[in-house]
Amino acid sequence: MKVMIDFCVVPLGVGVSVSKYVAACQQVLEQSGLEHRMHAYGTNVEGEWDAVFAAVKTCHQTVHDLGAPRVTTSMRVGTRTDRDQSMDDKIESVEKLLSEV
Amino acid sequence: MKVMIDFCVVPLGVGVSVSKYVAACQQVLEQSGLEHRMHAYGTNVEGEWDAVFAAVKTCHQTVHDLGAPRVTTSMRVGTRTDRDQSMDDKIESVEKLLSEV
Amino acid sequence: MKVMIDFCVVPLGVGVSVSKYVAACQQVLEQSGLEHRMHAYGTNVEGEWDAVFAAVKTCHQTVHDLGAPRVTTSMRVGTRTDRDQSMDDKIESVEKLLSEV
Amino acid sequence: MKVMIDFCVVPLGVGVSVSKYVAACQQVLEQSGLEHRMHAYGTNVEGEWDAVFAAVKTCHQTVHDLGAPRVTTSMRVGTRTDRDQSMDDKIESVEKLLSEV
Repeated sequence: MKVMIDFCVVPLGVGVSVSKYVAACQQVLEQSGLEHRMHAYGTNVEGEWDAVFAAVKTCHQTVHDLGAPRVTTSMRVGTRTDRDQSMDDKIESVEKLLSEV
Repeated sequence: MKVMIDFCVVPLGVGVSVSKYVAACQQVLEQSGLEHRMHAYGTNVEGEWDAVFAAVKTCHQTVHDLGAPRVTTSMRVGTRTDRDQSMDDKIESVEKLLSEV
Repeated sequence: MKVMIDFCVVPLGVGVSVSKYVAACQQVLEQSGLEHRMHAYGTNVEGEWDAVFAAVKTCHQTVHDLGAPRVTTSMRVGTRTDRDQSMDDKIESVEKLLSEV
Repeated sequence: MKVMIDFCVVPLGVGVSVSKYVAACQQVLEQSGLEHRMHAYGTNVEGEWDAVFAAVKTCHQTVHDLGAPRVTTSMRVGTRTDRDQSMDDKIESVEKLLSEV
């Protein structure tokens, strides 16, 4: 089962700057080989369910290993059985409609 | 690694009433043996990371099997390494403060 | 427009214990007069859109006033035009199905 | 109070394709004059709290007006009092760290 997620990892107990922890998660995703794209308030990832959620687990473990005693993540998780749809497909289908207005 | 999640499964393409799908997910959680509690806009689940996310995956698969071509779930995922904290502990720590006001 | 939300306020830069801030938000909700129920990973609130979002804004301001330099909230927001549905209605419609299994 | 949000509007009861509704929300944001950027699983918006949440409300109303009897949105909401931080700032602070690895 393919899945697309959008997630935002928030470390607690490490002060106000979280970019170090976000960068560590980006490296986890890079090493996972999964398609992923960061935006200003989270990251999109797509791939097989088990591979994607293994990467999310590694992100939590990595952020704990870097010193955060507590991590809270918010996530959207999308699956569909009717057809394959990539991150590009989703954006293009909206942009096509906007261009026709 | 223990985890507490709160998640809300939303089936698309099956009309406006989603209670049948939510009920199916409650049965998945019941069969998982994981501690879980439904509220009006989601469900709390706690347990070992792999068991909890296996249950989430089974929920997606079950909702697809019931006829939903598309499923989008929103989720909070919390882990902590400083101490164990159950669902009851979290609620009690807030209620204790409120009772002291 | 009526709305039901579920939200979880997370203060950053104030250490690992967040119960003080969650309790302050519960008091904001209490004073708002809005129907609300806390669970282990967030709080359900229902009411008129503007009143509910005014309470969310007051929560953010209150948590900042208590010393948190940064606040990140995750939220679900539900509206429907087909009928009124309270928090109790949502839970009952699922529990009715479960009882019939 | 400045706010940055990331939100994903999901119409229920209108079938499996949601791009028409997402496109309508993009037009709402365009007309709002607020800084906004769509990604594959949501949209970032930044601006003054009241203006941003007025746009979210208009999105819900617009999606209902287009025929969706039910709308469920998932949202992250971030405020900070220590300093101004734009969408670009957030991305740059992570990319700077990644470039130094």
